[in-house]
Amino acid sequence: MVLLDYCPSPFGMRVRIALAEKGINYELKEQDLNNKSPLLLQMNPVYKQVPVLIHNGKPVCESLTAVQYIDEVWKDKSPLLPSHPYLRAQAKFWADYVDKKIHDAASGLWSEKGEKQEAAKKEFIEALLEAQLGEKPYFDGDKFGFVDIALIPFYSWFKACETFGNLNIEAECPKIISWAKRCMQRESVSKSLPDQQRVCDLVWEMTNGLRVH
Amino acid sequence: MVLLDYCPSPFGMRVRIALAEKGINYELKEQDLNNKSPLLLQMNPVYKQVPVLIHNGKPVCESLTAVQYIDEVWKDKSPLLPSHPYLRAQAKFWADYVDKKIHDAASGLWSEKGEKQEAAKKEFIEALLEAQLGEKPYFDGDKFGFVDIALIPFYSWFKACETFGNLNIEAECPKIISWAKRCMQRESVSKSLPDQQRVCDLVWEMTNGLRVH
Repeated sequence: MVLLDYCPSPFGMRVRIALAEKGINYELKEQDLNNKSPLLLQMNPVYKQVPVLIHNGKPVCESLTAVQYIDEVWKDKSPLLPSHPYLRAQAKFWADYVDKKIHDAASGLWSEKGEKQEAAKKEFIEALLEAQLGEKPYFDGDKFGFVDIALIPFYSWFKACETFGNLNIEAECPKIISWAKRCMQRESVSKSLPDQQRVCDLVWEMTNGLRVH
Repeated sequence: MVLLDYCPSPFGMRVRIALAEKGINYELKEQDLNNKSPLLLQMNPVYKQVPVLIHNGKPVCESLTAVQYIDEVWKDKSPLLPSHPYLRAQAKFWADYVDKKIHDAASGLWSEKGEKQEAAKKEFIEALLEAQLGEKPYFDGDKFGFVDIALIPFYSWFKACETFGNLNIEAECPKIISWAKRCMQRESVSKSLPDQQRVCDLVWEMTNGLRVH
């Protein structure tokens, strides 16, 4: 099992968390996104992006699809998706919602100004699913699962979002901050997320043109 | 079982095909998208879009999620997704690829001109997955399944795409045209897709400002 990844990628973190939850050993091949490796181009010719999970020599691309794949292959240990079809559909709906919203919204926090930045803030806060979490410890109830895995990687981007987006996430989403700290108590999560300051430095480099991505 | 739908919606067609493949009876509630019903707003408060499948009073939104839900609940009859996790992941990857590309590309065919229209044509042709189909009768091989269901609804939009996008789909994607005709021999498909001329008229009304959507 090989994972092509780039440490600050929230999408890669999802796959790392899922593999850790299942206790699966794998080889991590960190990728240089400014100089993509032949292996990455061969394994993900469509999007040429990380993460790519390579299992028995065959690639699984797209992070949410890879997490579902891991859950289906290693189905007896630590199930990540609920077993009931309705709850599975709900979990997929919310994970997909995060994907549709959060990346563009986060980018808008530091690339836009004025009204457009305010709109990005609103989108970003909505993507954090504060109301959807409600009083539950995890999105699926008492059990850490698929929607938690979809969303928690962005916690490592919170400091960058606050710094460059002029935003106080705890003031807007106190329940999400408590939930994030709860998730971070799991080794699968804490070992998969980079330090918030490191991501903050990276965003500073990106916005100042010192990095392409 | 109730389906909130709008007949020309390719996303709604997916759910209708899946229900027909499984032989499930349901009540179709056609929606007016210019005057959304309280039921639609209540059942899909996030996107306020069709299709919404309502089963036992509970909504399942997003067409690919709804098709997977139908496949999981009625798993013994006419399986839509492959049983092997790797093939399931591949099917989800390609269905998701269609979703990411085809709608914007098709809109670009009639809303853009010049270079941007040419770019939309290229995107649209890529989204049709001619190379991915290859010589197979269906995307998953000999069996009609998930990727077929994701893509075939857009066949009802082909005449509109050709007329307003100045495009000859058969010249670009002969295998896809043969595949589409093969799919149309299934009652589940032919009964779920509107007539190509009807969609063509609708697009003419949309582009001339006679309809909002």
